[in-house]
Amino acid sequence: MEIKLSSPLDMHLHLREGDMLKTVVPLTADTFAGAVIMPNLVPPVDNLERLRAYRAEILEGVGGHAFEPFMTLFLKNYTEEQLLAAREEIIGIKLYPAGITTNSSGGVASLEAAEQTLALMEKLGIRLMVHGETNAFVMDREADFLPVYERWAQKFPKLQIVMEHITTASAVALLDRYENLHATVTLQHLLITLDDVAGGLLNPHLFCKPIAKRPEDREALAAAALQAHPKLSFGSDSAPHPISKKECCGCAAGVFTAPIALQVLAGFFEEHGKLDNLQTFVSDNAHRIYGVTPPTKTVTLEKTPFTIPAKYGEVVPMWAGREIAWSVKSVA
Amino acid sequence: MEIKLSSPLDMHLHLREGDMLKTVVPLTADTFAGAVIMPNLVPPVDNLERLRAYRAEILEGVGGHAFEPFMTLFLKNYTEEQLLAAREEIIGIKLYPAGITTNSSGGVASLEAAEQTLALMEKLGIRLMVHGETNAFVMDREADFLPVYERWAQKFPKLQIVMEHITTASAVALLDRYENLHATVTLQHLLITLDDVAGGLLNPHLFCKPIAKRPEDREALAAAALQAHPKLSFGSDSAPHPISKKECCGCAAGVFTAPIALQVLAGFFEEHGKLDNLQTFVSDNAHRIYGVTPPTKTVTLEKTPFTIPAKYGEVVPMWAGREIAWSVKSVA
Repeated sequence: MEIKLSSPLDMHLHLREGDMLKTVVPLTADTFAGAVIMPNLVPPVDNLERLRAYRAEILEGVGGHAFEPFMTLFLKNYTEEQLLAAREEIIGIKLYPAGITTNSSGGVASLEAAEQTLALMEKLGIRLMVHGETNAFVMDREADFLPVYERWAQKFPKLQIVMEHITTASAVALLDRYENLHATVTLQHLLITLDDVAGGLLNPHLFCKPIAKRPEDREALAAAALQAHPKLSFGSDSAPHPISKKECCGCAAGVFTAPIALQVLAGFFEEHGKLDNLQTFVSDNAHRIYGVTPPTKTVTLEKTPFTIPAKYGEVVPMWAGREIAWSVKSVA
Repeated sequence: MEIKLSSPLDMHLHLREGDMLKTVVPLTADTFAGAVIMPNLVPPVDNLERLRAYRAEILEGVGGHAFEPFMTLFLKNYTEEQLLAAREEIIGIKLYPAGITTNSSGGVASLEAAEQTLALMEKLGIRLMVHGETNAFVMDREADFLPVYERWAQKFPKLQIVMEHITTASAVALLDRYENLHATVTLQHLLITLDDVAGGLLNPHLFCKPIAKRPEDREALAAAALQAHPKLSFGSDSAPHPISKKECCGCAAGVFTAPIALQVLAGFFEEHGKLDNLQTFVSDNAHRIYGVTPPTKTVTLEKTPFTIPAKYGEVVPMWAGREIAWSVKSVA
């Protein structure tokens, strides 16, 4: 059995910098035609000079692959002039509440104070992408943030808002309630719950933020993805950390899925009899929602077993060592 | 400031065997007058010969300390003859649902089938101690087991049942509902929630089974301990694993607290203005509930800072490296 995917897109990706970037960029660029690049570097990507240099570093790492990095800025208080200058070079601006996840200490300390920048973004047609968690109890953090999405969706009706890496049934339900709310969902949140992270042995390689939630949450996310909900895009949130930061005391948050995402998704959609919806979920929705035109790329996946490597460089992927049913046959 | 504790007891303890036992036994025997020794070895302690040999190994490890190990058998189907022979040498029999935690693969596959042994235990006045979790979603496992406690409390009204290491407000509430239900609570469940395990960086040294729950659960447990609820005993569930089994991929469940438990408890009770209740919580309740008479031992704790060591042998304790307010001044 085979499936051909046309120009898959990953609408939420972490590439880091330096040696780590050199390791992971080709692993995404091999099978994806484009990806939204997150700006939470140290220091963050919060000005055009840094953004252009980062884009150049990514393109250098891409090598011969046809691949478009969709750049983002790290949200701070920007002037209208700064936003105007950046508008044509970014797909959106990413808001991190301060301290909520990896490299977010420079994030927004006051959501209210951020609203003047949001108003400018609405006026200029610049998309807002949000890591939507509060400092509540870990299982409640996303649900606790949902009223903020609702307030902004109402207050800024022309602002396009992307709820990034949603993990709860409640967030899925919001998609149908506000026209200007969209979302991305990761691979792991379609497949795992907190049981997989901490229900048997503790698995640091499945620990991420937002943390995987309850079975009923996973089911709601899976149902939305499998039907290729028109307001939902695939965004892997693939986030590489060296093994020394994962198998230790005080393990960093992030699941690395970039090189296996399409193969695992093919198996997941096939198991549920929804393989016909995979193209829409991993590509068409994002093309339409974000209005992007990445390079043309055709990925052929085939139902031939593939054993996920133990490591890519110093990075352990999700399900390292597991045999999965689908593999990449060719990319053209 | 000082407090003298008379014969503290740890009513739930894992000592392992061999080199690990030699490392950890003195760390408990130094400050506790006695402890309930869990039988989940490989193979489990499920016959008198093994139990006597294990007790001898523990006593050899104790060295010069005054310390009484209260032995337990691993629950399987026992005959009345076997139970009669064991009765005087055990404080109770521990029931593990099969596969629910460390070294529990030989546990009870059918709770219903275990009831014939429970009926014999009731008849012979042998206490039942239970790891009360089902295979439900990890945050629901204890709550899901509570109806089993209720059924057994009603069906076997003369059977003394100990709900081991309770972690939820619902379990606390059960204590007042059935005369024959008692409980133990660990140090960590008085202090932490899932936030401490997986809310910031992932902390394998705070990962245990049952997993730490929600803030409202921790508050209910703390309130019961601080008031020295008469049906609640301290049981550390201190469970040593070598660092190689904790800081890795697939980390084992268990928090090691034996050598720091009394110092941390003193700080916790003092902070809440309940230092006067500590003697009842860590000693008097257990003496009365279990009817035991361990060796006399007086532990003097003083409010002098103490930095928790990074390791005891190859075992990393809870809060390694943290300075706490209380230390052991002397043991007599």
